[in-house]
Amino acid sequence: MIVLGIDPGLSLTGWGIVEALSRDKINAIQYGCIKTTRLVPLIERLHTIHDKLQSVINRYKPEVVAIEELFFLKATKTVASVGQSRGAIVLTVSINKIPLAEYNPRCVKIALTGYGAANKYQIQHMVKTFLRLEKIPKPDDAADALAMAICHINTTTR
Amino acid sequence: MIVLGIDPGLSLTGWGIVEALSRDKINAIQYGCIKTTRLVPLIERLHTIHDKLQSVINRYKPEVVAIEELFFLKATKTVASVGQSRGAIVLTVSINKIPLAEYNPRCVKIALTGYGAANKYQIQHMVKTFLRLEKIPKPDDAADALAMAICHINTTTR
Repeated sequence: MIVLGIDPGLSLTGWGIVEALSRDKINAIQYGCIKTTRLVPLIERLHTIHDKLQSVINRYKPEVVAIEELFFLKATKTVASVGQSRGAIVLTVSINKIPLAEYNPRCVKIALTGYGAANKYQIQHMVKTFLRLEKIPKPDDAADALAMAICHINTTTR
Repeated sequence: MIVLGIDPGLSLTGWGIVEALSRDKINAIQYGCIKTTRLVPLIERLHTIHDKLQSVINRYKPEVVAIEELFFLKATKTVASVGQSRGAIVLTVSINKIPLAEYNPRCVKIALTGYGAANKYQIQHMVKTFLRLEKIPKPDDAADALAMAICHINTTTR
């Protein structure tokens, strides 16, 4: 199973492609970050996110996309930015007819560490361990996207 | 000039097509509302909004789309819903290579009534007057969408 994990944002959208051979054998295929600048209009920023995500989908042909549920406790302005980016991302996934799995932050933490209040570093450390990487993937948004993909595999694979 | 005004929402997205022959001669071509239910997953709701908006674009071929800026003072949950819908809508406009004009609520009020603190009813009354309609268009979301289109014409046409 090839899974695309996404950590949505307007300035930075992390993405990570992982391949699950079994629950215990998960390989990182590729990961990265889509950047847009606030110096260009929103419509161009969303189009950039759509275009780059489309390239990732075309290249790696994920069977499922895993994305974090929108988190309401952040500042309204953050929710507005992330929300609009997330809307464009979800529509891109839908246009490609790929199933979407949504997980809340607590689910991700439990799936990766067994502990619902794990911190960012503990999550990133487990991403490195699960994927047998030498270092924690950078930037943080890419690590978070890989965590989403691993969460999906750990939640659905027996 | 044919303008598509949009009032974005996740449950209800209003849309209105107006044709401007001059600043003083604006005709309502068609208007309506895209409804989605919270009983279906987000990905399906955004796809429905995209599909129906695409049908409106195919049919009326607007030269520009006018949409309200995201309003930060509402509840975070509202901003999250409207934001995701708005992201999918803006991406749909972008995919169709149509220019997008964004207006803040105060601009819309001034463009329609000359008064930045006008209430909802005053705006709707001016929509009816500008478009020479017999009644205020219903639902409210469609009237708000027509107001956006009129705002664009009044702001850009001399």
